[in-house]
Amino acid sequence: MRESEIIEQLRAAADNPAARGLLDDAAVWMPPLGRELVLTHDTIAAGVHYLAQDNPSDIAWKLVAVNLSDLAAKGARPAGILISLSLSAEDKTWIAGFASGLNRVLTEHGVELWGGDTVRAPATVLGCTAIGHIEPGQALSRAGAGAGHDLWVSGCIGDAGLGLKAQRGDAPPDKYLQRRYRLPMPRLALGAQLAKAGASAVMDVSDGLLVDARRMAGASRLGLSIELEQVPISPAAAARLPTGAEGAIAAATAGDDYELLIAASKAAAPALQQAAAETRTPLTRVGGFALSEGIAVTYAGKPVALPDRLGFEH
Amino acid sequence: MRESEIIEQLRAAADNPAARGLLDDAAVWMPPLGRELVLTHDTIAAGVHYLAQDNPSDIAWKLVAVNLSDLAAKGARPAGILISLSLSAEDKTWIAGFASGLNRVLTEHGVELWGGDTVRAPATVLGCTAIGHIEPGQALSRAGAGAGHDLWVSGCIGDAGLGLKAQRGDAPPDKYLQRRYRLPMPRLALGAQLAKAGASAVMDVSDGLLVDARRMAGASRLGLSIELEQVPISPAAAARLPTGAEGAIAAATAGDDYELLIAASKAAAPALQQAAAETRTPLTRVGGFALSEGIAVTYAGKPVALPDRLGFEH
Repeated sequence: MRESEIIEQLRAAADNPAARGLLDDAAVWMPPLGRELVLTHDTIAAGVHYLAQDNPSDIAWKLVAVNLSDLAAKGARPAGILISLSLSAEDKTWIAGFASGLNRVLTEHGVELWGGDTVRAPATVLGCTAIGHIEPGQALSRAGAGAGHDLWVSGCIGDAGLGLKAQRGDAPPDKYLQRRYRLPMPRLALGAQLAKAGASAVMDVSDGLLVDARRMAGASRLGLSIELEQVPISPAAAARLPTGAEGAIAAATAGDDYELLIAASKAAAPALQQAAAETRTPLTRVGGFALSEGIAVTYAGKPVALPDRLGFEH
Repeated sequence: MRESEIIEQLRAAADNPAARGLLDDAAVWMPPLGRELVLTHDTIAAGVHYLAQDNPSDIAWKLVAVNLSDLAAKGARPAGILISLSLSAEDKTWIAGFASGLNRVLTEHGVELWGGDTVRAPATVLGCTAIGHIEPGQALSRAGAGAGHDLWVSGCIGDAGLGLKAQRGDAPPDKYLQRRYRLPMPRLALGAQLAKAGASAVMDVSDGLLVDARRMAGASRLGLSIELEQVPISPAAAARLPTGAEGAIAAATAGDDYELLIAASKAAAPALQQAAAETRTPLTRVGGFALSEGIAVTYAGKPVALPDRLGFEH
């Protein structure tokens, strides 16, 4: 399949002036006046970040959604993306499916396809650069948590990990869990309110709650305690997980959730909960930061040994 | 090698506030007031766009330079890049070499490393998103050539193709030619002057003069005649190419030159040559656009049959 045919398939998703009909060497875009830009790039590889047999439409969704999730963690409003398709054996049907998923995720979030590149490669690797904007000085980092601040998490944790097992055929099918694995929903609405609500640090949970929370604590030069019994677990996940600490650990070390981890002072808690309510995003306090080092985990007040593996570590 | 170790190696190249020490999920950058942004992404794969055994420092240079070349074709001033490293078997030494080349190319062109992603993949694929800026409305496209306009090309054509042969060991070594293949120099200084000099269309020559010139003519809905005896060939290339039309065709169908193809009216020629002189960039008229279709090629006034292959067509 020639690059020109691939571009033809993607053109429907690029109906905006910045993209120049995907006919030019670069996109040209006037950024909104007085806004700071937020830029991120995530790459996913077949067999590593998704299954080669996954529906190409879902792969496109995921590629874009994981990047929008990084913008959500900064509180940015997404504007456009560039995509990179390094394709090995994908055919016309695959490209058509990918293009339809791309269209769907871009339309859902009001984001434009501006351009990118397609190449032939010995393995399929898909990249996305997402560009968003924000009020100057409002971008939160993962490094701002303070001692005494609480750790909150949006949505439910552990669904995507169980969804992957079902998707692979290693567990019985479950529509909700598989959907959570295949079609992550970036928490853009909540993210956009976090700076004003007084959050001190934000990041998205992509590799696992425990490993990502430890990264936030490390970046903030603090220690962290996690109350495992508070980790929000969906009914579908609870039906498949062991009860008690064991199940909570399994959920908190699974990846791909793309929920937001948020640090905030106790004084900020009402504003944070207000933002969650306004954006209809479940929000749960799961722990707290202290002037210590490392991560301590309890279940119903009793210390729990940290598992060897806190999540995906690249 | 862990992602954190790779990031550690790249951090030296990311000494700027937008990059946030490469510790965050996204870069945050305030674009210059009242400037339009130009955004481009090119991906290169080992064994397709470069040789796996190429020096990693040179690979980093090329990855960035081919993207800056797209910004040059728009007349944009580069500001920052995001890179994507999908690595298969690369080790610490490779990463260190890559980081040093990255530092070199960024310093040479005054560009910042803002962020990116590193993943493990079954094959090595390297991506770069480059962001630059320009006066609003000044970005040239490949679609603006007019009937009667001349076609100009910067520098010399065919060096990189011969350099690749030497690099592969299929021809005797030649420092100049191999350097032209390994370390392309984006024509940023000339590109920045082209809109004011009255150029009507610009693109970079990455796949071959004939195929890229035909793309410019097609985008401009015009026909094009190329005078092969005018194609600028370096002494080093001339020493390896057949004489006459055959040699010129070989040069004009070789890729990887990263020179600029420029369309301009005859009235604009003096300003264009002035811009070339000021930026010390050789510039040669190689043909002209007409109200026709397709591409016609002559050598010293005599028609020459078009080769089957005009360059690299993806």
